[in-house]
Amino acid sequence: MLLDQRRLPGEETWLECRSAADVAEAVATLAVRGAPAIGVAAAMGYALAARRGEDLDAAFEALRSARPTAVNLAWALEQVRAAGSDPEALARRAEAIHQAEVERCRAMSEHALELFPPGSRPLTHCNTGALATGGHGTALGAIRTAHAAGRIDRVLVDETRPLLQGARLTAWELDRAGIPFEVIVDAAAGALIATGEVTQVVVGADRIAANGDVANKIGTYALAVLADRHDVPFVVVAPSSTIDLRTPDGGAIPIERRAAGEVSARYPAVNPAFDVTPASLVTAIVTERGVHRAPFPPALRRAVEDAA
Amino acid sequence: MLLDQRRLPGEETWLECRSAADVAEAVATLAVRGAPAIGVAAAMGYALAARRGEDLDAAFEALRSARPTAVNLAWALEQVRAAGSDPEALARRAEAIHQAEVERCRAMSEHALELFPPGSRPLTHCNTGALATGGHGTALGAIRTAHAAGRIDRVLVDETRPLLQGARLTAWELDRAGIPFEVIVDAAAGALIATGEVTQVVVGADRIAANGDVANKIGTYALAVLADRHDVPFVVVAPSSTIDLRTPDGGAIPIERRAAGEVSARYPAVNPAFDVTPASLVTAIVTERGVHRAPFPPALRRAVEDAA
Repeated sequence: MLLDQRRLPGEETWLECRSAADVAEAVATLAVRGAPAIGVAAAMGYALAARRGEDLDAAFEALRSARPTAVNLAWALEQVRAAGSDPEALARRAEAIHQAEVERCRAMSEHALELFPPGSRPLTHCNTGALATGGHGTALGAIRTAHAAGRIDRVLVDETRPLLQGARLTAWELDRAGIPFEVIVDAAAGALIATGEVTQVVVGADRIAANGDVANKIGTYALAVLADRHDVPFVVVAPSSTIDLRTPDGGAIPIERRAAGEVSARYPAVNPAFDVTPASLVTAIVTERGVHRAPFPPALRRAVEDAA
Repeated sequence: MLLDQRRLPGEETWLECRSAADVAEAVATLAVRGAPAIGVAAAMGYALAARRGEDLDAAFEALRSARPTAVNLAWALEQVRAAGSDPEALARRAEAIHQAEVERCRAMSEHALELFPPGSRPLTHCNTGALATGGHGTALGAIRTAHAAGRIDRVLVDETRPLLQGARLTAWELDRAGIPFEVIVDAAAGALIATGEVTQVVVGADRIAANGDVANKIGTYALAVLADRHDVPFVVVAPSSTIDLRTPDGGAIPIERRAAGEVSARYPAVNPAFDVTPASLVTAIVTERGVHRAPFPPALRRAVEDAA
């Protein structure tokens, strides 16, 4: 059962998935999205395939190819496949992946607290909360924890076109959590950073390369450039499962181009869903293993090895 | 009669204005928008007030205060007021302002041609075409002229949230003109500039301060920062009536904050309509007097004096 994120915040509708193909479609059409959450969903889809006696190799491939950029999807599928073919064992493994994601969110958020001094006015992009993770969130989880510690004055939320994950999903979560926030159009971030309204930019990640380059929702790169220009910390919060040591740098990360119709119903459009922020613009990467700073290659390698 | 830009591209509806108050409302609600176009509309609104025997001081004030950022509005009103109080003289002056705007567009576009080498792939923001000017456009006029000269491969159009002047109005104009283009979300500009897809950023202006700082549609500042980082020329095309020598620098330009509801119907939002790009990020300012480069203060002063 998946909360259908395409219909939030207007409707809270649950989507029932009865096969690996149903889960793959839910991932591809963004009924469920967010790098950690699609990993959890895919693992459960694989376990579901086993319970139904589907061909497991075909299920693996359908789920893995549902979206190309987030590495957690392949990572979670490999984790669940390693549990064998017994449906109950696979279901337990998928549940364990979910529980581990919840635990990682909690740990990340606590490590990130040092990056939120009292009076913080963070800017965030896309949705990195409970909806995106299965836990209480990565970047948004860190904001929740900082708010609980009394460190947050107000959150600025990029609306995050074209699919409005910020205006729809992050706003929905912050509203329910009682955390003060204001939505802005993505193009307003520059002026608000320039005029001192932002104390840190905090985002999640879809994939982090071995050198610290970060693929994340389109628009992240511009935020990093603007933060750098105005000496505002640029912080990435993501589980170690987002780090892909087999990807040497951002140039090797496949960037999903989604349908033009998401941008314009009437005219031609190009719609890259992600961009790459070079490690040189990243102040800190926070995983469940701690706060990692440059030089990133040894720090990220250690984080992955510690987590294994 | 004003083509109602709020309804484009879906409907081509004409709005009849019967008083200065009607025109002021059309300007405030963006039925007509674009710095030069609102100047022309306001001048005609003032002449209309005279014809109807309205109080001219009240009409002036209602029109001048309809929007705060664009200086052309006050400039055009002062021009028309200087023609006295005879309704026919005022109507002729308003028509002359319109004709001069058409002529300035043509001259600007020809001067700007030197900034478009063959194979250009410009990125533009908001709408600066016929709809915004009464002529054939400022930044978009320059793109039209460059296209006619065979210099344009493809135009990238920022959709320009929250009101989508790019996705609705610039796309409508480019489509009608047969110029190849693609719409992008505003947040995609950074990645496309970084990957070499943009050969110049070309925008209009709502007000240019004496030192060369430029107020323009929200999102312009981020484009300038990104262009600077990737050595892509950042070009402003605007009539000399946009230059306000009485405004020393960008800090003195009032920035309109529009209603939160334009950004989010459901959640709190902040909605600055413009931002300020410092002169240091501007490669060239093109007016009907020529192509002006740093140091901007003497160049802009000369442009205004030559135009007087």
